[in-house]
Amino acid sequence: MSSSSAAQAAKPPMRDALVAAAFQLFLERGYEQTTVDDIVALAGVGRRSFFRYFPSKEDVVFPDHERCLADMTAFLAASAKEDEPVRRVCDAARLVLRMYAENPTFSVQRYRLTKQVPGLRAYELSVVWRYERALAGYLRGRFADRAGGTLRADVVAAAVVAAHNNALRSWLRSDGEDDAGAAVDHALGYVQAAFGQEAPGHPGGPDHPRAEGGEDVVVLVARRDAPLWRVVREFETVLGRG
Amino acid sequence: MSSSSAAQAAKPPMRDALVAAAFQLFLERGYEQTTVDDIVALAGVGRRSFFRYFPSKEDVVFPDHERCLADMTAFLAASAKEDEPVRRVCDAARLVLRMYAENPTFSVQRYRLTKQVPGLRAYELSVVWRYERALAGYLRGRFADRAGGTLRADVVAAAVVAAHNNALRSWLRSDGEDDAGAAVDHALGYVQAAFGQEAPGHPGGPDHPRAEGGEDVVVLVARRDAPLWRVVREFETVLGRG
Repeated sequence: MSSSSAAQAAKPPMRDALVAAAFQLFLERGYEQTTVDDIVALAGVGRRSFFRYFPSKEDVVFPDHERCLADMTAFLAASAKEDEPVRRVCDAARLVLRMYAENPTFSVQRYRLTKQVPGLRAYELSVVWRYERALAGYLRGRFADRAGGTLRADVVAAAVVAAHNNALRSWLRSDGEDDAGAAVDHALGYVQAAFGQEAPGHPGGPDHPRAEGGEDVVVLVARRDAPLWRVVREFETVLGRG
Repeated sequence: MSSSSAAQAAKPPMRDALVAAAFQLFLERGYEQTTVDDIVALAGVGRRSFFRYFPSKEDVVFPDHERCLADMTAFLAASAKEDEPVRRVCDAARLVLRMYAENPTFSVQRYRLTKQVPGLRAYELSVVWRYERALAGYLRGRFADRAGGTLRADVVAAAVVAAHNNALRSWLRSDGEDDAGAAVDHALGYVQAAFGQEAPGHPGGPDHPRAEGGEDVVVLVARRDAPLWRVVREFETVLGRG
């Protein structure tokens, strides 16, 4: 029994073998020119094994997104009331980056493939949309009790996804050589500065100034007609200087 | 000649007839159950006429997006240096809303159809992505000379699209009864307050406070260690009170 288990562990799981075979063929022949039959022949398994793991040929290109989406959903569901919502969705987005960064070679290969095949690009858009809806769904819950909560939730979710993808693409274009973590921290920091804690208000918001502290910047929002003393007091309060 | 022209004008153009026939069938039988042959039979034209106007059955569901994308691209290309970039992309997004609002019944029917058919949802995501890239492309040009310009461009474009779509969907869910213009003004106003004029800075930005005036709010960004007198002076300057 133990020697059979060891043999099992030494052999990469069938799912991984299918992904490896698929990418070998995609790179050699192109995506469109590779059939599921070609993939299973190279991996040495039957068609049914392929479809047990992947509903379609497109899915083998993105083998980890379902797990990552499930991880993100679980992460958001495990949030506490004390978690600052914008920071929380930024941390959720970092789970996606981590999935890419875990395997730079594979991620860079897939990036090049996706750019060439319109069908994969469409698939990727639908995946990105599901991440965005997961983030927006969490934020909608957190902002449920305020006016314009769904608007704020949708805008913040879209901004987080766009910032994440900007950093991710920069990293992919560097062939995975740059520091992915630093790039995404910078990008998400920008979104947190814009929307974190309380967002920088908007017309129709409360008529007193609001100051919100980020890591090392303070965003203060005031109506044009706010008295200066109020603005100063709010600024001092948020800095703990008052 | 003139009577023939009049007859021509009285008859809806073939493209419109194809769209009308398609939607009649989609609503009666469902999208998947309707073939291009069914559509051309009802419209009384040949298959070739259909494919002259629409590359696929999906395209007939979104007959005006190509024109709208072209209008948006032209609108952005016609921008002046004096145009505040975030306001400009908000105005560009309003072109999309106008397209929907021009024909509420059709837009609401399509909204219901798109919700039911995953293939149409995927098509719509690719259209939305093209609008977003058009906005981001313009903003990247405008922000080209500043650090983090592409990040800012991508985030603002995504925020504008999310805000627009939040307002659009509210209007569609009201069966086109609400005031679409007011909803989108409110939603885009939120994005302009967050990012308009100059954006609310972020860690790594200039080390002096920056205040940016919107319509009736002022967003002021300062480092935590900024001297209070500088914050006050900046606030006064942007208000024209100093």
